[in-house]
Parts: sequence; C-alpha cells; structure tokens
Amino acid sequence: MIADYQKRCQQRVDRCLDTLFAPPHPQLERLYRAMRYSVMNGGKRVRPLLVYAACEALDGDRADADGAACAVELIHAYSLVHDDLPAMDDDDLRRGQPTTHKAFDEACAILAGDGLQSLAFEALAAETHNPADPALRLQMLISLARAAGPAGMVGGQAIDLGSVGLKLDRAALELMHRHKTGALIEASVRLGALASGRADTEKLAALQQYAQAVGLAFQVQDDILDVESDTATLGKHQGADIARDKPTYPALLGLDEAKRYALELRDLALAAIEPFPASAEPLRELARFVVERRS
Amino acid sequence: MIADYQKRCQQRVDRCLDTLFAPPHPQLERLYRAMRYSVMNGGKRVRPLLVYAACEALDGDRADADGAACAVELIHAYSLVHDDLPAMDDDDLRRGQPTTHKAFDEACAILAGDGLQSLAFEALAAETHNPADPALRLQMLISLARAAGPAGMVGGQAIDLGSVGLKLDRAALELMHRHKTGALIEASVRLGALASGRADTEKLAALQQYAQAVGLAFQVQDDILDVESDTATLGKHQGADIARDKPTYPALLGLDEAKRYALELRDLALAAIEPFPASAEPLRELARFVVERRS
Repeated sequence: MIADYQKRCQQRVDRCLDTLFAPPHPQLERLYRAMRYSVMNGGKRVRPLLVYAACEALDGDRADADGAACAVELIHAYSLVHDDLPAMDDDDLRRGQPTTHKAFDEACAILAGDGLQSLAFEALAAETHNPADPALRLQMLISLARAAGPAGMVGGQAIDLGSVGLKLDRAALELMHRHKTGALIEASVRLGALASGRADTEKLAALQQYAQAVGLAFQVQDDILDVESDTATLGKHQGADIARDKPTYPALLGLDEAKRYALELRDLALAAIEPFPASAEPLRELARFVVERRS
Repeated sequence: MIADYQKRCQQRVDRCLDTLFAPPHPQLERLYRAMRYSVMNGGKRVRPLLVYAACEALDGDRADADGAACAVELIHAYSLVHDDLPAMDDDDLRRGQPTTHKAFDEACAILAGDGLQSLAFEALAAETHNPADPALRLQMLISLARAAGPAGMVGGQAIDLGSVGLKLDRAALELMHRHKTGALIEASVRLGALASGRADTEKLAALQQYAQAVGLAFQVQDDILDVESDTATLGKHQGADIARDKPTYPALLGLDEAKRYALELRDLALAAIEPFPASAEPLRELARFVVERRS
C-alpha cells in the first residue's frame, strides 16, 4: 500500500516539477536543461511524500502542499548536484546515470544547483500550489530556509566533509545525520503540516518527533543494508561504508544492536503520532517501511 | 554627499549582516567563518544602498528595509564566491584578498555560497528588519528569488560562460548584463520600494526604469574606465577586457559613443524618477555618480 501511495505522490509532484524548466530565453536553454536533468531523474520523491502525508494527516488539501512538495525536492536535488562535484564527493554516477557535472560540465552543475535553490524558494513563495494565507507561507519559507541552510543541510555536508578520516562517536555521527539529512526530512513534515492550515503547536511537536525518529531510522537501516548486501554479494562481513572508513551504526553498535535501534526508532515514530486520526496512516506505513525495506 | 550616504548605508547594513555568522554548533565553526569571510570584506554595499535609497524615496522607514538590504548583499556575496571557483572564472584574489576557495578550500567555498543563498531568503522572510505585513514580505521574496535565480543572475553567469570566445553583438551583450548584474540591481530597488509599504504600480514601474538605466550605465562606465585606465598606465589604447576578447561597449561602439551612451542612460534614469520628491535625492546622486566616477 505504501508503494501505491509513493507512486501517486511521485506522479503528482513530478507533474508539478515538470512545469518549472521552460527556458525563458534561448541563451538559457542549456542551464535549464541541466536543471531539468538534475531533477527529473525518476527519483522516489521521499521528501514530497512526507509533505503530502503530513498534510493529509491533518486533513489538509493536497493541492495546498504541491508548492512545498516541489520546494523540498528542488532543495534535495540541488544538494545532490553540489555534493557530487569533484571538490566534494567526486561522484561520476547517480542512479546509474552520469552526474550533472559529467553530463554537462562543472560550471554548469554549480550554476544549475544554485538555480535550483532559488527555484525552491520561488515555488514556496508563489500563490499557486500553496496555502492562500501569506503568514502561513512565510512560516513555511522560514522553516525551509533554516533546514536547507548552514544550520541545517549545508552544515551537515560541511560536518561530513570535516569528518573524513576521523573516528566519530555515536553523538557526533548523529549530529552529522541530523543536519545532513534529518533537517530536510523534518522540514518536509513540518511544511506539509503547515500547508494543511490545521497545524497547532502540539501537532507540530508530535510530527517533529515523528520526523526525527523516521529520519534517523532511515539512516540506521541504510547502514544495515550496506553491511548485509555486501555480505550477501561479497561473502564477507564488511560493508562499503566501513571499508571507506565512514562511520556507520553497525560499526559503532554492532549489527544486532543497530537492528534493535532501528526498530526502537520506528516505535518512537509511531508513538509520536499515535493520537492522530486514520488519515495519518501513510505516515505510519512509511515508518514501518523504512526499517522493513531490503534496498 | 553620495559618499557620506554610501558610508552610512554601509555601516548600517554591516551591523545587521554581522549578526548572522554566529555558528550554532562548534562543528560548524569553519563553515560560518568562511561565510563571514565572504561577506564582511569591506564591500561598498552598492545594492544595500539602492535598497535604502528606494525605500527613502517613497518616505519609508529604513528599519523596514534592513532585511532586504542584507538579503541582496548575501545573494551578491554568494554569487562572487561561486563565480571565483576554479570551474568558473578561477580567480585567486578579490579586493586584494584571497578568494574564499583559496582562504579555505573549494568544498568549503561551494558550501559557504550555498549557505549564504539560504541565509538571504531567511533574512527576508523573518519578521524582524522587514515590513510587518506578510503579503508584502512574500512579494519581496518572490522578486528576490526570480532576480537571483536561473531567469536572473544565475542565468546571466551561464550566458557569460557560454559566450567565451564568441563575438557578441550589442543586443547579446545587453542580454548578458541585464541578467548577470541588472536583475539584482533592479530587485534591490524594487525590494526597497516594497519595504516602504508605499509602493504602487506606477512608482514601481518608474523605479524599474531607473534601475535598468543605472545598472546598464554602471556597466558601460566600467568598460570605459577599463579602457582609459589601461591607456593611462600602459600607454596604449587597449583595455584588459578587449585584450581578453571580452566584449565591451567601447569595443562595440567606440570610446566616444560609449561615453555618450553612458550619459544618455544617466539622463534616462533621472527622467524616470523626475516626479519623485526630494527624498529621492540619493537615487539621483547615485545616477550622476555612476557615470562621473573615475574608478
């Protein structure tokens, strides 16, 4: 069922994203092509899903969450383009396709990323696809700017790059994840809730707890899958992340304890939204899926 | 007198900018230091000056324009950090100091630029230093996002990089400048006018005409100064830009015609705001200064 829901969210946000890349001038054709290439890549759209699911959990109208769904995906896409650059993680492939700086060039990839960040804020400030109430849109904009910026996602990438070769303890690892991926996941849930027009302080706090737990569970499970898939394919108990001396939860806690931790986080997430009505079912399904998935 | 006004605007926006770079976490210290280094560099703050001057031209309160003044400078600063990168213009020095990727490293410069862009939108969305009316702040945010993004400043840099080695005609040169520097200059004037809370369609249109003319005049005069300073120092009629095969107005029009064009643009700018009251004097002074300056 979560697979169907994911598919519907993906199609919905992709339709909306697809309208953003018409070059306003022939000389801008290549830049817009690079932005489109970086976004319209068949991504699973996990963050837009969280936006829609949080909006529906509070019985909001999906149509008011389209702007936020686009915005979080545009921020995510820009961060991948910049993270893949030679000066950063230096990756040639993403989802089996050449990364943006390989398909175009480095300068074009830097500019495409920069442009996608601006488009994200434009998508969230616009009257269409967002709640009509300007005060609500401003609250959403502030949340996204903080989550995307140096105190959030950008800071997380800086911490990650600064940790290469260091032995991180559990607190340091969690700090990095909380910034690098957690901040935008939290913002996705918060933006969806705000877009519903029915969020109050209590509900926002519950959803924040949910998002923190799910975001971390996602990361822990990723680390577990990295170990287990390597074990299956390579026949040795050594994951790619461990081999690269990247700190992981199985390396820090042991595999069994890491698995226990993932389940604990799932339960924390479910407990946080326990009082929510049936419309919160997609959020619940997602929390279960995150720790049950095999890839 | 414009020098005094410039100094006051500079001090005012610098005080406001200076508060933005306190790292929220020790692990983020280096990133915040790189952002501060990129912004607090003794810049003239021409764009903030335009924000304040436009706000005052409509008898607005400067205090409501501080957020916009910070935002346009943060966007400008981030664009310089990214433009200086090896994959872009590959500059080692800016205002006689090492560029951000030289003083720190490339990854840190990319992230500092990304973070500065987020901070710009955060500064403009916040309740402090901006007009209280949320609808007004949203209008300002949309204007800034468009001016900074792929249809504005980022697009201009893409056009510029795509023009290397090409012979641009006057229309193509103007298209590039209108995007690369013109869009943010126009947005600065527009944001200041909106911040006053007293802008109407007619006044916004007049100020846009003013900003377009001043922005272009600035560029034409830059090209002229490039030729003339080289003539003085090198004893030959060959500017650095012409030598680098970069299209310039003197190269396209001849030096005398370029000078005539700069004066024409100044007069256009002055005519656009002719009906404005005495409070528009800083805008008028600036239009004169742009074509009279010798450096």
